[in-house]
Amino acid sequence: MKKIDGGICAAKGFLANGVHCGVRHNRTKRDIALIYSESPCTAAAVYTTNLVKGAPLTVTKNNIQNGVAQAVVCNSGNANTCNANGIEIAEGMCTLVGETLGIDPTDVVVASTGVIGQPLSLDPIRSGMPALAAGLSRDGSDAAAEGIMTTDVAKKEIAFEFEVGSKTCRIGGIAKGSGMIHPNMATMLVFITTDVAISAEMLQKALSTDIKDTFNMVSVDGDTSTNDMVTVLANGMAGNATITGDGEDFAAFMKALNSVNLYLCRMIAADGEGATKLLECKVTGAKDIAAAKTVAKSVVCSSLLKAAMFGADANWGRVLCAIGYSGADVDISRVGVAFESVKGVIPVCENGAGVAFSEEKAKEILSEKEIDILVTLGDGDAAATAWGCDLTYDYVKINGDYRT
Amino acid sequence: MKKIDGGICAAKGFLANGVHCGVRHNRTKRDIALIYSESPCTAAAVYTTNLVKGAPLTVTKNNIQNGVAQAVVCNSGNANTCNANGIEIAEGMCTLVGETLGIDPTDVVVASTGVIGQPLSLDPIRSGMPALAAGLSRDGSDAAAEGIMTTDVAKKEIAFEFEVGSKTCRIGGIAKGSGMIHPNMATMLVFITTDVAISAEMLQKALSTDIKDTFNMVSVDGDTSTNDMVTVLANGMAGNATITGDGEDFAAFMKALNSVNLYLCRMIAADGEGATKLLECKVTGAKDIAAAKTVAKSVVCSSLLKAAMFGADANWGRVLCAIGYSGADVDISRVGVAFESVKGVIPVCENGAGVAFSEEKAKEILSEKEIDILVTLGDGDAAATAWGCDLTYDYVKINGDYRT
Repeated sequence: MKKIDGGICAAKGFLANGVHCGVRHNRTKRDIALIYSESPCTAAAVYTTNLVKGAPLTVTKNNIQNGVAQAVVCNSGNANTCNANGIEIAEGMCTLVGETLGIDPTDVVVASTGVIGQPLSLDPIRSGMPALAAGLSRDGSDAAAEGIMTTDVAKKEIAFEFEVGSKTCRIGGIAKGSGMIHPNMATMLVFITTDVAISAEMLQKALSTDIKDTFNMVSVDGDTSTNDMVTVLANGMAGNATITGDGEDFAAFMKALNSVNLYLCRMIAADGEGATKLLECKVTGAKDIAAAKTVAKSVVCSSLLKAAMFGADANWGRVLCAIGYSGADVDISRVGVAFESVKGVIPVCENGAGVAFSEEKAKEILSEKEIDILVTLGDGDAAATAWGCDLTYDYVKINGDYRT
Repeated sequence: MKKIDGGICAAKGFLANGVHCGVRHNRTKRDIALIYSESPCTAAAVYTTNLVKGAPLTVTKNNIQNGVAQAVVCNSGNANTCNANGIEIAEGMCTLVGETLGIDPTDVVVASTGVIGQPLSLDPIRSGMPALAAGLSRDGSDAAAEGIMTTDVAKKEIAFEFEVGSKTCRIGGIAKGSGMIHPNMATMLVFITTDVAISAEMLQKALSTDIKDTFNMVSVDGDTSTNDMVTVLANGMAGNATITGDGEDFAAFMKALNSVNLYLCRMIAADGEGATKLLECKVTGAKDIAAAKTVAKSVVCSSLLKAAMFGADANWGRVLCAIGYSGADVDISRVGVAFESVKGVIPVCENGAGVAFSEEKAKEILSEKEIDILVTLGDGDAAATAWGCDLTYDYVKINGDYRT
């Protein structure tokens, strides 16, 4: 498997674009993205478990119930959620895309991200659609990735090449993260494209399985969004024998999908609102995977630990505290904790109690941009990883007045 | 029932003091508190549910297993938690108090608050004990309240006078809150004294019942501390007929206890680390109390909402979002939200969708120091209240480098 350029346009037959249409006032920010496949795709998606669900999720769910889609449209700047006419607007977006591209409106995946509870007008989307569609190109992944950003600072895109049978296949994805990020069974906005040939059923199985270890293990702020969604479109243009069941081919695809998702997870966590550091909590020695996951996620969610990491303060008591209230069945007297970065690794706790360590060395390690928090539970063989970010002044700044 | 002065010394026979002994380096900050009753008390306590438990909690639990105590000692600046010799040190503190006051060391409640995982030396406590005990007085509640503070800005003390039968009784409390505040079955450090005569069993029942609606409904940062503890000492010096079962007398005591706890809850939330505002989420119309509590607590715990409240931004979509992921069974299409303060009340959401409102008026309401978030669920008759605070730059500042 090899990392390649092109993001969501790396796979054969996919075109993309992103433009400013006017949902946002800032004319320099692209606010709508379009992805189009030259041939119909099998489609799979997972959605937020929040009881408040964005109208676009409902429409997308209906549209891909038959396992088929050919395009994705997504605006930023307005979540089209908690609006009385939300469904009508989301369906209107699909109709506009369908008319412009000459495809069935029910083959469109629709998504929105931004402020909740502000009516979304179709006018800017209607007026922007001709330019959006006309600009679709094989180089459009960047523009599309920009079009879905809200408070994101970094564009998030990735692609890999992999083999299924003797055929070379490609898979790529773009994502939008930043705030309201604490996915549960689904996640932020992620659009993945691949030219692998795979049945809709196996595509859904691959996605539903993989997100449990990837997006569902990310948290920026503990808030599970109303509009989280991950979709995969697979157009089969790689020419491999269609994957219709478990086996070597499915495993190869799973591995490629996991590589895309892992990369985007880390990008989303590292670009959490206001974040200066990526936190990766690796739990080993758990008695089962559920316990490992619970502990890992509890650690990266702790506001106190996140603030300590911002300050490069090796306050490991907060790691122990977060393990202790996680709800996982853990023998605290066996817990070990170490901090690691490119500057080295430093054990700070063994058997549930502190060990002497150099504060200077710890500061040096924790001053890096990617910090691993290594937790050993001494209870078994299970392991899990969770991703988060530090809690900073800028998180408060960004969210103290997000709407203006 | 009448609010009175005196805090934990308001009840007959209770003396208190707080001094600087040297656990902390800052010589201007009192770092140890002592409470003493002239006669033995019935005692009750509730403790954190964190699997990591401070050594003082274990020792206190042993000491008051017989339902009797006569003194409380508590240091700040070091939590005596996750230290190999923690139990020995906590027992050592009890021995020092016992020897100095001439009471049984097992009649001492011991507590510690501060940094986790740093060995606590008995030396400063030993050297400070003579002055601490010599200074015990009827005016000592203030000094004791200061002695248990960590990053708290405000002293937290309160007392009430109430009637049991024809006897006038008193109850008072002090508390320490600020950070790592998200109690679960128990809470931060709270010491309550009363001169009511009550059996240990009924005292425990009163406390265990009341905290479910008071301290367990407070959150500053979602982190359940390792050292949370609430204790009540009742010395019976008011001379009422000892309360040994349910009935009018027990109800009168419950009401007084609830008044103390409610007051301290609000103080703890308002003085959350870095907080500028007290948030009170009042949920009504829930189908049962569990749902009402789940919703109320989810709202005050949302980092996004807390940051919006700091910015006086009426971003009600974040209230809906927090209700939606709370886990409570709610019909979102019936939810209403309003913001209220001394400047008035403004409805912002009805039937799950936004209503037009004046941003200017909302800003005026949300710029106050105490904000009520009123949530109606339209689902039944149950109600609950939760307390929290805004998320500010200072929370990050305080916790970015807490140990230095």
